[in-house]
Amino acid sequence: MEKKIITISREFGSGGRSIGHAVAEKLGIPFYDKELVDQVALESGFAPNFVEEHGEHAPGKSILSYAFGAHGVPGAMNGLSTADFLWNIQCNVILQLADKGPCVIVGRNADYILKDRKDALHVFIHADKEFREDRIVRLYGESEKSPEARLNEKDKRRKVNYQHYTGRTWGVAQNYDVCFNSAKLGVDAVADMIVNIVKNSK
Amino acid sequence: MEKKIITISREFGSGGRSIGHAVAEKLGIPFYDKELVDQVALESGFAPNFVEEHGEHAPGKSILSYAFGAHGVPGAMNGLSTADFLWNIQCNVILQLADKGPCVIVGRNADYILKDRKDALHVFIHADKEFREDRIVRLYGESEKSPEARLNEKDKRRKVNYQHYTGRTWGVAQNYDVCFNSAKLGVDAVADMIVNIVKNSK
Repeated sequence: MEKKIITISREFGSGGRSIGHAVAEKLGIPFYDKELVDQVALESGFAPNFVEEHGEHAPGKSILSYAFGAHGVPGAMNGLSTADFLWNIQCNVILQLADKGPCVIVGRNADYILKDRKDALHVFIHADKEFREDRIVRLYGESEKSPEARLNEKDKRRKVNYQHYTGRTWGVAQNYDVCFNSAKLGVDAVADMIVNIVKNSK
Repeated sequence: MEKKIITISREFGSGGRSIGHAVAEKLGIPFYDKELVDQVALESGFAPNFVEEHGEHAPGKSILSYAFGAHGVPGAMNGLSTADFLWNIQCNVILQLADKGPCVIVGRNADYILKDRKDALHVFIHADKEFREDRIVRLYGESEKSPEARLNEKDKRRKVNYQHYTGRTWGVAQNYDVCFNSAKLGVDAVADMIVNIVKNSK
């Protein structure tokens, strides 16, 4: 079946976001990353940077205390934890975006949320540590933490969040239709391969 | 770096062997599957069908009793269990085959054994259960066991063997350069994509 919806899951620093952006541009279809965050923010009442920070992270005390502390409680949480509340809204937003038409969606467990859509292509991007360390310093600059610690922290959070909400293990090949090592194959080449897969799908 | 050695790891029934064969043919390079088994048999003193059956299986009592029972003890096992003895020979044979020149090697943990070769492309092929069940019945015929039981048994053995000898988890995307769902993308299309990756590698 023709693939219209492309979900890109990715290790931090692997270039997955850039690949998703390039694929959307080459196919002339919307790229949902910031827009998705904004929509979840709008529907949840949380600030976009809070959604950005916590939408892919494991549920935990820090999120709860944030929600019930400085920023007050958004309406209609129906007794859910902030993380579960965000997850529900995120699921709905992703399902709605996919219904709107062809698009590329980066992260946020979209592979799982859209696993039953036969017109979806689920992609996972990973890369060697050195490549990712170099990339995050180049793109996001230095910080107090070592690049290695930043990678480990971010990936661990995504992993725990994925496991918690999907019951599946993050990065297992069988969850995706195609997985690429962007360090070994090249960010541009991977984007081209995804475009070709989509164009050749029937 | 130019990719000359292609290792194909695969779920049972996913078409990985056919894909490897097609890739080797399209690139005009040797395809090692049966030849590898024959070489390990020659060097180990075991019969090819014993090597074929046990080379990707977990070390266990059944192998030991086989080796020390009906078929006697092959020479120079140096106190190793049959499984470890076979593993050592298999490693050497795979390293030697890769040294001989460009080739495709299917299974036998070659991705791990050749993980330090920068001219190797490591591929993993998986597919949905229905696709694999249908395929094994079509290719290997019916048997007393259900197709599902046959898949589970074979994959479990490969998984345990891989974990035991490599310390890694079988099927985790990060172990491979590229992973494909052959049911979703098509056996022929996957072979073509691998050929293109090899041809475009520099």
